[in-house]
Amino acid sequence: MEQIFVYFIGTAGSGKTHLTKAFSDYLDFKKVSHIIVNLDPGAEELPYEPDVDVREHFTLDTIMEKYKVGPNGAQIIGADLVGTIADDLKDDIELYDAKIVLVDTPGQMELFTLRRSGEVIVRCFGRENGVMVYLFDPVVSKTPSGFISLVFMASSAVFRLNIPQILVLAKADVLEEREVETIVRWSSDPEELYSDLTLESEKALSLDLFLMLKDIGLFRPLIPVSSMTGQGMDDIYDGIQEIFYGGEDLEKIFG
Amino acid sequence: MEQIFVYFIGTAGSGKTHLTKAFSDYLDFKKVSHIIVNLDPGAEELPYEPDVDVREHFTLDTIMEKYKVGPNGAQIIGADLVGTIADDLKDDIELYDAKIVLVDTPGQMELFTLRRSGEVIVRCFGRENGVMVYLFDPVVSKTPSGFISLVFMASSAVFRLNIPQILVLAKADVLEEREVETIVRWSSDPEELYSDLTLESEKALSLDLFLMLKDIGLFRPLIPVSSMTGQGMDDIYDGIQEIFYGGEDLEKIFG
Repeated sequence: MEQIFVYFIGTAGSGKTHLTKAFSDYLDFKKVSHIIVNLDPGAEELPYEPDVDVREHFTLDTIMEKYKVGPNGAQIIGADLVGTIADDLKDDIELYDAKIVLVDTPGQMELFTLRRSGEVIVRCFGRENGVMVYLFDPVVSKTPSGFISLVFMASSAVFRLNIPQILVLAKADVLEEREVETIVRWSSDPEELYSDLTLESEKALSLDLFLMLKDIGLFRPLIPVSSMTGQGMDDIYDGIQEIFYGGEDLEKIFG
Repeated sequence: MEQIFVYFIGTAGSGKTHLTKAFSDYLDFKKVSHIIVNLDPGAEELPYEPDVDVREHFTLDTIMEKYKVGPNGAQIIGADLVGTIADDLKDDIELYDAKIVLVDTPGQMELFTLRRSGEVIVRCFGRENGVMVYLFDPVVSKTPSGFISLVFMASSAVFRLNIPQILVLAKADVLEEREVETIVRWSSDPEELYSDLTLESEKALSLDLFLMLKDIGLFRPLIPVSSMTGQGMDDIYDGIQEIFYGGEDLEKIFG
């Protein structure tokens, strides 16, 4: 059985790094062998110890110094450099006998999904073994228009990287229970979202569009998760199983 | 007549800053009074002299020092701080008797569109006087899947900021003429995009969906522009006029 690559993807501040750590803890508990790869050259204090780390090749600081650029320029150069060491990273990963490889991606989502390196990495690591956990920022998700912005962002990532996607509502612990329920309802019932969006803005949108977006799979029930409480880790794990094994337990397959 | 705010928005490296400069040169030539506002605290060497500049309040370097964070953290803090000085910026802008205010936004698109400050700025400056020029990155736009990723990103920005949008294909000069034609054709003919996307990937998508996306205005003809050659500046100007005056010439109204 080949390694499975789980990419944590979401906009800046959505909590990718802490979710990576929380899911790693969960896998420890389940005794599923795994490693963590950090792809963010700008990562500072990580809550986990990465097994493979892009910072062993370069960091934003070394890029700023070497290329005489500021933080903005360094992030773009750093993102592009990640693609150039894809094979090296893959070699490092293969040294481990891990069933699952958790990949923590750069802070800014667009650095990974839109610049070429994201595609290069996913192809090099193996597209057929990849799945992305896409994090919805809890604060942005609170309004219907913010929520649908994130649906579009998530869709953008799917079209670009072309791997299956598990959608999660990150940091559910910072929201009130009622808010989580509303957001989850929007994700599974486009008519509800449509009606709340109509209340929020004057936009004349077609309900048919929302129903079609659901039909092609852009709307899928969000899994509320929390790196603080461990909420939702089971669901992410089940989602991965479902994608790769049609629901057979990973423990059995990996055992 | 109130000031019109033109926001240049696009993903990192799409060329916002140079397009801001090129459009400013064009307005100079047309003798339309305008100013430039820089909202990127991480901007280094700007090709223009900003009239109002967020860096007079803080820069990524001062944030890194003050908050003891690295470049990643500084960008998030910087993005959030921009929202807190919206009123000050607005006061500075009002000191100028400019008809058009060109707003150059932070390098990473998600820092502006998804974090709260973008919304705060647009509301403070006046939503009814705002329009965004959304830049499609030329390299990402070259493949059908990259192109549709950007359509979704652009849609995300519209839902979030809730102002009219002019879509441009940035840096058209780096593409071959044939490539520009193909991309422009995709933007105006969803059936063409659908067919090319089907060739590129195995995804089973519905043509109806593409037609509906067009119906609600997510697909709109892209304007090829170039900050190098000045291509497309007229079209952006016409687009702004169309939105605010239904096509009457700005010169006449402003004259």
